Order: sequence, then structure tokens, then C-alpha cells
Amino acid sequence: MSATPSPLAPSSSDRIWTAALLVIGDEILSGRTHDKNIAQVASWLNVQGIRLREVRVVPDVEAAIVEAVNILRARNDYLFTTGGIGPTHDDITVEAVAAALGVEVVIHPDARAILENYYATRGGLTPARLRMARVPAGARLIENALSGAPGIAVENIFVLAGVPHIAAEMLAALTGTLEGGLPVLSVTVGCWVAESEIADLLRTTEKTHAGCQIGSYPFFREGRVGANFVIRSTDRAALDTCAAALIADLKALGLDAVAGGI
Amino acid sequence: MSATPSPLAPSSSDRIWTAALLVIGDEILSGRTHDKNIAQVASWLNVQGIRLREVRVVPDVEAAIVEAVNILRARNDYLFTTGGIGPTHDDITVEAVAAALGVEVVIHPDARAILENYYATRGGLTPARLRMARVPAGARLIENALSGAPGIAVENIFVLAGVPHIAAEMLAALTGTLEGGLPVLSVTVGCWVAESEIADLLRTTEKTHAGCQIGSYPFFREGRVGANFVIRSTDRAALDTCAAALIADLKALGLDAVAGGI
Repeated sequence: MSATPSPLAPSSSDRIWTAALLVIGDEILSGRTHDKNIAQVASWLNVQGIRLREVRVVPDVEAAIVEAVNILRARNDYLFTTGGIGPTHDDITVEAVAAALGVEVVIHPDARAILENYYATRGGLTPARLRMARVPAGARLIENALSGAPGIAVENIFVLAGVPHIAAEMLAALTGTLEGGLPVLSVTVGCWVAESEIADLLRTTEKTHAGCQIGSYPFFREGRVGANFVIRSTDRAALDTCAAALIADLKALGLDAVAGGI
Repeated sequence: MSATPSPLAPSSSDRIWTAALLVIGDEILSGRTHDKNIAQVASWLNVQGIRLREVRVVPDVEAAIVEAVNILRARNDYLFTTGGIGPTHDDITVEAVAAALGVEVVIHPDARAILENYYATRGGLTPARLRMARVPAGARLIENALSGAPGIAVENIFVLAGVPHIAAEMLAALTGTLEGGLPVLSVTVGCWVAESEIADLLRTTEKTHAGCQIGSYPFFREGRVGANFVIRSTDRAALDTCAAALIADLKALGLDAVAGGI
């Protein structure tokens, strides 16, 4: 703790805002589809100053979705879901979120209008397509410029598509609209060293730099072992001081430490 | 239900075996690292006749790991974890699993011997490296032919490395050792159609083929919309009948359905 606070240090705005992500879909749990939404939502949240605290992946089973929605929305500022909002029988996210909230499923008039317009030249708004206008009562829509069918915001829950580039459109529509705190900044220090050789240095460096956390991510590449050390903090000055100290200490051991990672 | 059971239909062995996966690591929740273990563990489990029912991703925080371990191990036959078993200060999975089980952390003599041998030509077994020999009391080791440090099996929990190719080695060592049931088989039917156009057909096809589930996975490719319909069942005959019926019905609508997916 420094006697003179850094101008970038958290003051009254040091509340930490958190989010959970619920990934819904048998295709992830079967291994057929490799999830891309966890990393996408995590990166987006960080820019909004919101920390992703927990992710769950559940099957297309209403009871499993309801349980996860109710736990995760209660203990986080925000809950995001991906998957299960299309027109087919296996798309049950809207029913499940409504059941979790104890509200009815209704047709949102704006969603209906969006779909009517979108499908006017694509065969018309069939009953199956109208399913994509259903929302839990009280919900707002999240724009989807790409394929018409909107996402859904209700209470602190944000229901996004499972297809990653459509989820990205919905995140873009939400950018800047959610209250957050200070984003977590990070600096990566790379080094061609076995992490086990410098484990003590990492531990003491983290301990002596309050507000900084260090993660160690080893790799094996080009026939050599190495590691990237990711230092995270909301305080830019503390982060830079910590990174400089780690690089200096690694160099003092005769190791070639590289800011930016390797 | 057929009057003459198929020779491949489940008989006394129709118990469903389930597993959960707990992915441990700040690097996944920050978006820095794209998880590869969910799909890898899911695919491996399916071959063992075990269904992945739930995945959670938690940070490197003991309380979060303990909570997830205790819920997931209680309601599944098996629990797998990935991440947090290296030599550095942020590797706390062993402590957390031991705390969840209410047992001590001990040095496993065989793990110590493996590490002594592995590091004999790599600078010796330092205290940091000896951390990788620690296990919850009562644990067995899971072989890691690649980098020495073993995985850990304790009660119904299997603690694997976070680095995907090392986790793969540990899964290989476990192949065939866990009791399972019938694997879920799947057939994919691809079609250049908007899934919303044939949503009713999918629903009725699933309803009229007991034991089969159909997932619909739309895509936009080469300027056209299409979808893959994945039919899953433990019964090969039921699966093939369902797939043949779906293909015939799609063709009757003038659509070009392709077995194997597109």
C-alpha cells in the first residue's frame, strides 16, 4: 500500500461488477461443437469493466437451465446465456428463463414486427419462425443486425444466440449499456524457463505487489519449455511496477524475459 | 417399442453413467485462453459410455472450487477437473479437492519417485517441483507419459492437467478403466434449408422415433443458409430408422438431404 495513492488507483468506483455465463446446448456437452462463446463473452465483459466469475454448460433440459439461471442470476450482477433461442423444438431457453423468473412466455410485438419484415422476402412468418418472437414477460429486445431474430434482456439476464457470430452482433448492441467498474488490465511477461524453476520468485513477486495477481501458463514449443506470466490488476501503475520488477528479477537470474509474452 | 428387441437394444445394461467436468482457471474466465478440454473430455467420455452432463468453469479460488467439486461429485458418477496442478502458487486444485473431501494433502511416494526420475537430468527435484507430488490422502496416480507430473484419481474424482495435450495423455491412461454404459451414437443429416422451414418435421420425427433425440444446428456458408440435424441414440437400429425417415421426408419436400452432414 503506497502512502501516495496513484491517480489511477480505484477510489469510490472500486465496486467489482460480476457476471456469469450459462452455455446451453447438447452439442457442447457431446463434444460435437467446440464452444467459442466463453472466450468471446469473457473478453467483451472485461472491456465493459465486468468480471466473468463462473461459467456453466448445461444440456437442453429445462430443469437444468432453470436451476443454473436462478443460482447464477442471484449471485452475480449480470447473467448471460448463449444457445437455444432458435425456431426448432430443441430451442427451450425462453421457456426455461421464463420458468426461472416465474413469468409467462409472450410474443413481443417488436420482435414479431422484426421477423415479419425479415421473412417478408424469405417465405413469410411461419408458426415455427414466430417462436423466435417469444420472450419472458417484461423482456426487452437485443438487436441482431445479422439474422433478424433478436436477443432478449430481462431483469439482469441477457439471452444471446448460440451461433458465435450472431452472439457477437448482440454483444455489439449491448456495448456500453451495462454499468461496470474498472477493467482488469494485464501485462504478459514471457520467458524460456520451466515455471517450476522460478515458482518461488512468482509467489514472492505477487505477495509484494498488492492488487496484482500473477498467473503462470507453461508451454512446450520449438523443442523447449517456456512460460508466459500474466500479471493482472485494475491499477495501471501497480501493474507496470510489478511487471518491471519481475522482468528485472528474471534477468538477474540470467533468464531472457520478454515484455508482451512469447 | 418393438415387440422383438433389437440385438443392440439396451437390456440390463441400460443404466446411464454420467460425468461432470470442472474447468479451473482464471485464464479461461479472462478470455485469454480458449478452452479445449470441454470438447476433448466430452468426446473421450462418450467413447467410454459415459455422458457429460454439466460443465463448470471457476477461477483459481479455493472456495469456488470446493463448492463445485462437492455438488458435481455428489450428483454424477464421475467428476473430472482440468487445470491448477502445476508447481506455481496459482495451482491450488489439490488443496481444494482435499478440502472438499475433508482429507489431508500428502506427498504420494510414487509421484515423488516419478518426479525425482524426471528431473534428475533437468536440475533436480526442487521444493516447487515437489508440489506436483502432492495429492489428497488416499489418492491414486494417473500416468502422464509426456511430462512426468501425474494426474490424480481420488474417490470418483479425476484431476487432470489444464494443458490440453497433457490432459489427453492422462485420458489415454484412463481409457477403458471406468465403468460406463452404452455409448450415445449419432448420425448427422445435412440439408441446405433454413431450419425454421422444417421445424415441424423435426419435432414430429423426434416424437415418432422413441429413444432418438434430434438437435438442429444452423449455419450460413457460401452465401446460403443450411443446417445439420444430429440424431442421437444408444440404439443403432432406432438411429438408422430415424435418419432414413428424416432423409426421406426432406426429399419429399424437394430438399437435398445428405447423410453425414454438410
